[in-house]
This record gives sequence, structure tokens and C-alpha cells, in this order.
Amino acid sequence: MKAEIRNSLYEQAKEWILEAGARIRKQMRDPLVISIKSNPQDLVTTVDEETERFLAGKIRELYPDHHLISEEGFGDNLNSMKGTVWLIDPIDGTTNFIHQRRNFAISAGIYHDGIGEIGLIYDVMGDCLYSAKKGEGAFKNEERLPQLREGAMLERSVLAMNNKWLIPNPVVQVEKMEELIRTVRATRTYGSAALEFAYVAEGIVDGYMTIQLSPWDIAAGIIIVNEVGGVTTNVFGEHVDILKKNSILVCNKKIHGRIVNDFILEGKK
Amino acid sequence: MKAEIRNSLYEQAKEWILEAGARIRKQMRDPLVISIKSNPQDLVTTVDEETERFLAGKIRELYPDHHLISEEGFGDNLNSMKGTVWLIDPIDGTTNFIHQRRNFAISAGIYHDGIGEIGLIYDVMGDCLYSAKKGEGAFKNEERLPQLREGAMLERSVLAMNNKWLIPNPVVQVEKMEELIRTVRATRTYGSAALEFAYVAEGIVDGYMTIQLSPWDIAAGIIIVNEVGGVTTNVFGEHVDILKKNSILVCNKKIHGRIVNDFILEGKK
Repeated sequence: MKAEIRNSLYEQAKEWILEAGARIRKQMRDPLVISIKSNPQDLVTTVDEETERFLAGKIRELYPDHHLISEEGFGDNLNSMKGTVWLIDPIDGTTNFIHQRRNFAISAGIYHDGIGEIGLIYDVMGDCLYSAKKGEGAFKNEERLPQLREGAMLERSVLAMNNKWLIPNPVVQVEKMEELIRTVRATRTYGSAALEFAYVAEGIVDGYMTIQLSPWDIAAGIIIVNEVGGVTTNVFGEHVDILKKNSILVCNKKIHGRIVNDFILEGKK
Repeated sequence: MKAEIRNSLYEQAKEWILEAGARIRKQMRDPLVISIKSNPQDLVTTVDEETERFLAGKIRELYPDHHLISEEGFGDNLNSMKGTVWLIDPIDGTTNFIHQRRNFAISAGIYHDGIGEIGLIYDVMGDCLYSAKKGEGAFKNEERLPQLREGAMLERSVLAMNNKWLIPNPVVQVEKMEELIRTVRATRTYGSAALEFAYVAEGIVDGYMTIQLSPWDIAAGIIIVNEVGGVTTNVFGEHVDILKKNSILVCNKKIHGRIVNDFILEGKK
């Protein structure tokens, strides 16, 4: 994709994401909406669908030749990443949305012929936008994010991962995961894949691993993390197929190999 | 403690805590301090000690008959909670402080003859103060926190707990903790006991359990959670001795009994 097209597409996508976020904040603070949707599950469903419909409508109107892969059913059924493809999760972190009314994000990745061009992850209630254009660095709002630490070591790392890794699972032996927990400095669990990708990019966690994610959960994050020198694979260190569900390991390059080789592959089922 | 004395003490404590937080923010943004303290461990040690020295100095000057229990060595060695006792953690969440430069808190609880009178938990970088006076409700900044949900059910709960519960530990069988993980809706790990108490009070998590905490980690949180109808015990459902280290279970009353009886006591070692 030409830089000129990428820039213009980025500006447009950013405008829509910020507008979608403002609409969500309005709905979440509107006593009328809240009282009609007395069940938090209704509220998340409504906001999820309305946000996706809003973004899908904008894209289809201005870019009728673009494709869309998304969670709530307004997207296309694609078998290929040919052309320009938007991958959107209107609310990433629905449990946080329901229980916390914060700590969720809109995630949007834009790919062209399979190459990640633009990533946007918007922490809606925090009004904080993580973004990247291919080859132009990653940003947290207006602030450029530095490259990930050169001197990272697994023993001094903080990993984002949930408890699922430590109960019997189809991927890896629990004993190896216990060993990993004992090796790293600490683990965190935040409950939003998109934000956990953003936190890796920001360097506030050194890695994030998860058993299964969908295309719209990871599309933006991969691009943003890539711009600060991070790496995303499945947990076995293999290429991620953006059209399918994948296990995910995203982290600082310095610790990627050790997690894959010493813990996941050693304990692979 | 008389309401009049409690109110005046609260205003004074709040002023000092906010001032201590402003000093921390200044140090963390000061390029000179950052460059001298190139090792994050040095930075946390300095900020920890300076914050405690600042608060201890203020307390000893204005309230020479009060006692102080604190983490960094400026406190007293107490065997009793008689009189007025401050319990202070100048930086709760040191790993977050080092790795994230946010998501840590100043925690201060004030007790009189063993009764919790005032609790203050200050999310320094978020500039967000959780506070309570005994019998007068809990607040997040100026906003009064509602009572915890009446209809809470373990199956729809989000629990804050770390991975330590799922690796062999001296307290409880791992199998029962796996069962707990499968029962609840989700778990979160935030890495600051004080903030996790505050999140229980705010209702954004329904409970928080941890294997061992010190007096200054829990003193403020107990008071704040108590004001919204939450309960704090050790994980066996027993009374917490504020002068000692305890395991901690703090949560909505509706789920407390089930966690204790069906999971912890069933799996007790």
C-alpha cells in the first residue's frame, strides 16, 4: 500500500474509531439506555452490535471495495486476505464491559494483500488510543512508543496470561506452566486481548499468551507490537494465520524463544 | 473515636496522602531523578522510603501520641492496637511501579483501639482516591460507592487472584482451586493488594483472595470494603489479626461462604 493511501486511510479509520468510542461512552452514561437495558448482557449486546453497524456502514459507504471481518455478523465471509480487509472487534473485553464498565477496547486492523498496514486499539473509557502505521512506529495517543527493551530477561519479566494455562488444557502440560510461573517475576490477567497486546507494545508487560483468539482479537495488536520490535506467533512459535483461530504468544523478541522452546514445546501435548 | 475527631483526622490524612502522591508523580516524571536512578529498583526504593519518611514525619509532628506501623522501617514495633495507630504502605504494588510506572497505590488505614476508623487508598498515577470513614460510607474521589450487589452469585463472579493459587501451595489443594476457576465467570490479576481491595469496594471485581499479606497491605482496604457491606476474613473464614500476616479473602458477603466452605475448607491442607 502506498504511504499516501495508508495515511489517508489511517486518518479516516482513527476518526471513526474515536467517534464510535464517544458514542459508547454516551450510551454507558445515559440513564435512559441503562434503565432500558437493565441486564448488563443486553447492554453489551446492544453496544457491540451498534458499534459494529456504525463502523461497517461507514466503511461500506466510503470504501465499497474493501472487505470486513468482524465479530458481530456485519462482516464478509472471506477465504482470502486479498485486497484491503478491515478486521474489527467492536468491544474487546466483554466481561470487563459488563462487570467493570471500563477496561475494554475497540480493535481495528487494516490489511492489504495480507500485509498489516494500520492498527488501532482504543481504550474507550480511558480515552487512550494505541495506534500504528506500518513502518512508521507505534503511538499511545500522541506519544511515540519506544522500541521494546533490549535487555529483557524471562526471569525479570511480567507476563499477561490467564489461569486457563494452569488447569488441564489441550495445549500444554500444566507442570511446565507451573515452571514458567515460578521463572518469571509476575503474571497479570486483564481480560482484554486487544489491551494486552497494547500493553506488550507499551512495554508494561513483556509478553502475553493465550490459548485461542479470533482474527478480530489480534489483527490490530500484531501491527502495533510489530512497530516496537515485538513478535507475534502461535504458542509453538509458528506463523499466525490471520483468517483462522490461533493460540497466541506475543512478546519481546528476547524472551520469545525461551517461552516457546523451554516451556511450550517441552510440555506440548 | 468521636465523629468530630475522625473528621478532622480524615481531612488531615487525605491532605498528606494527596501531597505524597503529587510528590511521587513529580519524581517519576523528573528526567533528573530518572537518570540518577537508572535502575528501576533504585527508583522504587527511593520513592518508597521518601514517601514513608514524609508521612511519618507529618504524623509524628502533628500527632506525637499516635503510633505507626509501616513497611519501610520508619514505624513502631507494636504488640497492641491500643490508642490511635496508622498503618501505611507508601507504595503498594512495587512490581507495577517498576514495570508499569502506574497501577500502584499509597495505602493508609487509621485505627483507634483496634477499630478501623479511616481508610485511604490512593491510585497515584490515576489520581484516584478511594476512601472511607467508619459508618459514613465509601467514596471514589467525590462519588459515593453503592453497597455491593445483593444478587451476587459465585457463577457470575469475577475474582481477583493470582496464579500462586494454582501451583502447589501450603494452604489448599490445587484441584479445589481449579474447580473454583471453572466455577467463576473470570479471574483477574492486578498486582496491587490495596487496589484489589478498592476494586472489590467499587464492585468491579466481586472478591479478592491472596495467600499472605502484611498489616499495611490490608488496613485501609478492610475499612473501605466494610463500608459497602463487604467482608474480610482469612481464607478459612476466620478473623484477621491486623498485627500479623494473614491470608486474605475479601468479597461480597453473598459469595464469601461458598468460597470458604466449598473450596478452601474442602481442599484445606
